[in-house]
Amino acid sequence: MQYLDFFESAVSSLKEEKRYRIFADLERQAGRFPHAIWRADNGLEREILVWCSNDYLGMGQHPDVIEAMSDTAQKMGTGAGGTRNISGTNHPLVQLEAELADLHHKEASLVFTSGFVSNEAAISTIAKLLPNCLILSDELNHASMIAGVKNSGMQKQVFRHNDMEHLEELLAAAGKDRAKLIVFESVYSMDGDVAPIKEICDLADKYSAMTYIDEVHAVGMYGPRGAGIAEREGLMDRIDIIEGTLAKAFGTLGGYITAKAPIVDAVRSYAPGFIFTTAMPPAIAAAACCSVRHLKESQSERDGQQRQAARTKEVLSNAGLPVMPSDTHIVPLFVGDPDLCKQASDILLDTHGIYIQPINYPTVPRGTERLRITPTPFHDDTLVDGLCEALKDVWERLKLPHIEPGTFHDLTKQPEQQVFQAVGG
Amino acid sequence: MQYLDFFESAVSSLKEEKRYRIFADLERQAGRFPHAIWRADNGLEREILVWCSNDYLGMGQHPDVIEAMSDTAQKMGTGAGGTRNISGTNHPLVQLEAELADLHHKEASLVFTSGFVSNEAAISTIAKLLPNCLILSDELNHASMIAGVKNSGMQKQVFRHNDMEHLEELLAAAGKDRAKLIVFESVYSMDGDVAPIKEICDLADKYSAMTYIDEVHAVGMYGPRGAGIAEREGLMDRIDIIEGTLAKAFGTLGGYITAKAPIVDAVRSYAPGFIFTTAMPPAIAAAACCSVRHLKESQSERDGQQRQAARTKEVLSNAGLPVMPSDTHIVPLFVGDPDLCKQASDILLDTHGIYIQPINYPTVPRGTERLRITPTPFHDDTLVDGLCEALKDVWERLKLPHIEPGTFHDLTKQPEQQVFQAVGG
Ligand SMILES: Cc1ncc(COP(=O)(O)O)c(C=O)c1O
Ligand SMILES: Cc1ncc(COP(=O)(O)O)c(C=O)c1O
Repeated sequence: MQYLDFFESAVSSLKEEKRYRIFADLERQAGRFPHAIWRADNGLEREILVWCSNDYLGMGQHPDVIEAMSDTAQKMGTGAGGTRNISGTNHPLVQLEAELADLHHKEASLVFTSGFVSNEAAISTIAKLLPNCLILSDELNHASMIAGVKNSGMQKQVFRHNDMEHLEELLAAAGKDRAKLIVFESVYSMDGDVAPIKEICDLADKYSAMTYIDEVHAVGMYGPRGAGIAEREGLMDRIDIIEGTLAKAFGTLGGYITAKAPIVDAVRSYAPGFIFTTAMPPAIAAAACCSVRHLKESQSERDGQQRQAARTKEVLSNAGLPVMPSDTHIVPLFVGDPDLCKQASDILLDTHGIYIQPINYPTVPRGTERLRITPTPFHDDTLVDGLCEALKDVWERLKLPHIEPGTFHDLTKQPEQQVFQAVGG
Repeated sequence: MQYLDFFESAVSSLKEEKRYRIFADLERQAGRFPHAIWRADNGLEREILVWCSNDYLGMGQHPDVIEAMSDTAQKMGTGAGGTRNISGTNHPLVQLEAELADLHHKEASLVFTSGFVSNEAAISTIAKLLPNCLILSDELNHASMIAGVKNSGMQKQVFRHNDMEHLEELLAAAGKDRAKLIVFESVYSMDGDVAPIKEICDLADKYSAMTYIDEVHAVGMYGPRGAGIAEREGLMDRIDIIEGTLAKAFGTLGGYITAKAPIVDAVRSYAPGFIFTTAMPPAIAAAACCSVRHLKESQSERDGQQRQAARTKEVLSNAGLPVMPSDTHIVPLFVGDPDLCKQASDILLDTHGIYIQPINYPTVPRGTERLRITPTPFHDDTLVDGLCEALKDVWERLKLPHIEPGTFHDLTKQPEQQVFQAVGG
């Protein structure tokens, strides 16, 4: 049997569809973010500007966070040395879990080695522990939530993105007496729109459902202490399980859930994805803890991010570039074709030293390919203006369509989409 | 609906079965391993000896490895800042992947944030890409491999542990023309026995099957360059996919696969568990890379571990303690009851300051509960003797059975087990 052929042809079909991914080899430089070194395939090194990082607040280069990591490595070594149960629970990790429970005003929290794993492990375990649970899942949920839903083996129904009527229909049909879990995100990271959290909670109350929110693209960035959109809207106590990451605005690595103690204890005790893997190293836990603590107090990073994101939207929109409407720090720029999207990204990098990865299917629906721009507090006005000039040049060269200056790209003008079960973010 | 009740009762059933897990809050101290600080529930701190770490060679406290982590954090910050595709690929990670491919003499390698994720993502993706693939899985495979098998959605057949006749039967029944993937471990970490790799490869050749080996408990520790048991036996080139962890003998965090380039590229391109999650931070990659490089050259850690493991087995066996037969560095001590196993562990910690976590179902079959001891090069002869004295005291107090001094515990005397699909390690 010619096994290799199957793998080769799987890869070539991606190349044919122009969605074969090439990773940019980057070297970040602490203190100089968003500047970084890019190593091209020919080995040449070049300084570039990163405009698509999810280190949204630049905390990954904060001197205190770096110091916490480096200091803890010196004191406690580089690894945890075991699973949580078998010698791997370390004191900085215990402290981090306390800090996160406090951040979200919950009884307990549990840290995983990634946000992906936290969603997969928590959703699948929670749903499995509820008899005959029905999972109601937003159609744009992230791949990690879809993995959790699928691996639970429970029935799922997908509701149209942020569509409360559809959700209510499904809840009503299931009836009050059936166990139900609503899983959704606060900020959808590819569009930058926000879920109607209050309405979802109201429906959950009305039909007696549990609520599970992914605040991965909101923690650190929204709410007076950076606990996310649910904090900003005063709704944290109405959500049963809040999930977040330590790898985006908090600038490190790992994910977590917070909830009432018995829920957290059950996930801790039953989830294979939590139990059978080495614990987070103390140095990572200490760095994450430092970052969470910092952002509980400090508003300047959040203010800077909001200011620069607003300015980016304004400048690009005024130049007639098709910025997609977004309620958050995320600035998507519509292209609508995988090949042009890749070409735009290549020209930006090669000609302008600007790195923005093309976002293609399956991360977003076909026909909505885009450049996803994430301004941070460190992308100052000069950099925003430079970005705009570069994009104008790219739009010119590739003859991409413009919009009425000062408006936003109208998505309803898109060819109609099928109900889209996204697989990622 | 009283949702909390379900979680509470799930947790209480574990308590009733005496397999509710309490995590020991530890603070490792670089340079003093295996000494560590243990924080009891009452907040009191106490110095203890760790005898159950999977930092098998103490590399987590190696000065060069710590320096690599701390230095890279200073230079490049604490996080990767994105998924591998979207701004998260960092230069130390690229270097680490090259180093791992070289270690195993393979064309390519791919790093994940854990060994668990590497198994789940790689096995499920590889099996899915092979039409109508049949997975043949050793009955004692780790939870992460079981997750990969299950999430592939492909048919699986479990063969009796290390039983070549059974494996051949299943292969023959499937026929030469069906795609087949044999998944197994080299070192089974709860018993310390080793797979008949050559025989498995011979069968794979005979029936045209692919081979996937988990060398998690062997990399760093076996073979002249620490590439594992397959290296020691000169069989690396006969295995299609070698999987390993960076979180045990290499002392850091993360997992990986190595294989021919098209296989690695297909997993890279198709596995949600790889694609949709933040990349490993450069500081972790640099530390792991340093550790791999060190153990490629240095034999002293491997020699020290083998010497101290052999001595531990000898001393405990001579004292009539029921050491289970093991071909590796792992020293399992038979107890056979979850409650007694927990009590033994508690007395060791409270009275003797020795930390050995009890290993209960579902990590091992019921009735084979045990203490799993992992001597490292840093557990010197005096510590081994101290361990033996402490265990003798525990065996006395709990009236646990002894064996004939100088022999090993005879597992065939166990009440017969059902075919056991382990869920973990
Ligand atoms: C909505 C959402 N949830 C979860 C994750 C996974 O988080 P992590 O990168 O920490 O694995 C991501 C992105 O990576 C995401 O976009
Ligand atoms: C056989 C085996 N494979 C994989 C893993 C997972 O590796 P990691 O701890 O890096 O997630 C483990 C233990 O944790 C294991 O025992």
